[in-house]
Amino acid sequence: VTGATLLERLRLGDQAAVSRAISLVENARPGFEELLAAIHPRTGRAQRVGVTGPPGAGKSSLTQALVQQWRRQGITVAVVAVDPSSPLSGGALLGDRIRMEGVALDPGVFIRSMATRGALGGLALATREVCDVLDAAGFDRIVVETVGVGQSELDVVAATDTTILVMVPESGDGIQALKSGLIEVADVLVVNKADRSGADRLIREIGISLELRQGARAEPGWIPPVLATIATEGSGVAEVSAAVEDHHRFLEATGALTARRGTRLARQLHEVVSRSLSRWAWDAAEGARLVADRRADVAEGRVTPYAVAAAAVARLAGAEDPPA
Amino acid sequence: VTGATLLERLRLGDQAAVSRAISLVENARPGFEELLAAIHPRTGRAQRVGVTGPPGAGKSSLTQALVQQWRRQGITVAVVAVDPSSPLSGGALLGDRIRMEGVALDPGVFIRSMATRGALGGLALATREVCDVLDAAGFDRIVVETVGVGQSELDVVAATDTTILVMVPESGDGIQALKSGLIEVADVLVVNKADRSGADRLIREIGISLELRQGARAEPGWIPPVLATIATEGSGVAEVSAAVEDHHRFLEATGALTARRGTRLARQLHEVVSRSLSRWAWDAAEGARLVADRRADVAEGRVTPYAVAAAAVARLAGAEDPPA
Repeated sequence: VTGATLLERLRLGDQAAVSRAISLVENARPGFEELLAAIHPRTGRAQRVGVTGPPGAGKSSLTQALVQQWRRQGITVAVVAVDPSSPLSGGALLGDRIRMEGVALDPGVFIRSMATRGALGGLALATREVCDVLDAAGFDRIVVETVGVGQSELDVVAATDTTILVMVPESGDGIQALKSGLIEVADVLVVNKADRSGADRLIREIGISLELRQGARAEPGWIPPVLATIATEGSGVAEVSAAVEDHHRFLEATGALTARRGTRLARQLHEVVSRSLSRWAWDAAEGARLVADRRADVAEGRVTPYAVAAAAVARLAGAEDPPA
Repeated sequence: VTGATLLERLRLGDQAAVSRAISLVENARPGFEELLAAIHPRTGRAQRVGVTGPPGAGKSSLTQALVQQWRRQGITVAVVAVDPSSPLSGGALLGDRIRMEGVALDPGVFIRSMATRGALGGLALATREVCDVLDAAGFDRIVVETVGVGQSELDVVAATDTTILVMVPESGDGIQALKSGLIEVADVLVVNKADRSGADRLIREIGISLELRQGARAEPGWIPPVLATIATEGSGVAEVSAAVEDHHRFLEATGALTARRGTRLARQLHEVVSRSLSRWAWDAAEGARLVADRRADVAEGRVTPYAVAAAAVARLAGAEDPPA
């Protein structure tokens, strides 16, 4: 399949072409930047929704329930699940994806897991570019779901239009969400498994956290709703969906959507240029060979990593007298 | 203070010099690579211990209890707390650090929080280099504690000799730890708040997870102990400390310590060379000015980020005919 054909099939929403394009982008295979350049003018139409929260909060169940809700409204949905790969096996665990099989045969739904290790230029950029592919393929809504609650996951969901933070009672989530900075990026707050004891207390705690952090929020005019759900039973899901739509209308009405997307596009420009320059320098300096050649010297203490790096830069810069 | 003086004072374990050196390294200020090159031959003596686990598990309480235990044994300890900065305020929340004030006046203890955003070359490398500074300053043991449980935090603790994974009952942590890949990097497993209901069940679940994942583990000869603690009361802490020491002896006896450190040093070489080359290319191509100049063109759709990147590379590579 040539680039032009892939692009054509992508525009028609062909799921095999979408899969192929994502693999190309995710693995930074030859031609991925040309593909992204070609689809770039067709991006910016889809509504991007992030779903984050601590492990065990029921993010996948809520995502699945939202997808079903939106499909009933005729909205097409793509789900990108950012799974941490196992550091040893290198594979992503797909348990939650399997649970979404109920919607997997619907051509209006596309589900994809992304492994997180080794993404060239960082996970947030790679996820954003995968969303660009799905956006260009014509999906109405794109859900980015993360498994962890670390800094890189926070960066990932921060690149969406609307962020849903999912928490559960009985785990001190309210206080911890404040601590992790998640509450500042959240536009819609969900207390899932709301039939458990402690749900009311958690909702109150979140309310206090929101008031405390009010000044730090990105959109001062938006008061994030705190909603109770039992996602596995579908309870409260319609309200979450309505809140996502309310937030989108708020962003459109206030001009915040344009502003947010402008900021993100500027950041993408920065990261794309940085990635290209880094890759070029690494290749031009024959970084891989250099590292392999000097590995033993570094291990045996004959040279430091910093001296090897300085010599590589000096050679690339064409200096006569490398400072190694 | 000149570089030489700073280095001299660092060798003497002067806490103000340690702080200053860490700031230099953390913020990649001029001279940081020279400092790291100078201290490099003095690293590799300290024992590095990672403490990870989901928010609310009591990682800081356990760290504090371990520090007190080790101080009673005359062991000097440095703690590096990797806190996610708030994406909007840019500041790290230091609540847990304040709780450690009980040990803060002891010159045998050094506590430092690291903000995680924008670390040049990635968080894992920056944390490792901060540990190198503390190692060269003569601390016997260095504890790296993370707040989140995302991929970047996993990379951070994977750069230690021994990783402690802390979990609590009542939050489905056993299943989730397996899912996140944490159980594969953990050398010592701790069920904290063990007086809560569900502790026995969690210990059983962890045991099953460990058996299931046995083949994937880094050190097949080591069976990670599963220990119960109530860190705030000091209960079970001596056993955790003993397990950390057992694991260290195991690593030394089997040669795994040398192998692990060799692998990490090779990775550090790769990352240090990559960071230096990237920084050089960004500066040589005047990346910051280029991004600022083309930002409006990208926002208004006159050019894609990919075309700007290709032109930057072409100019740096000295091509006659940039493909923009």
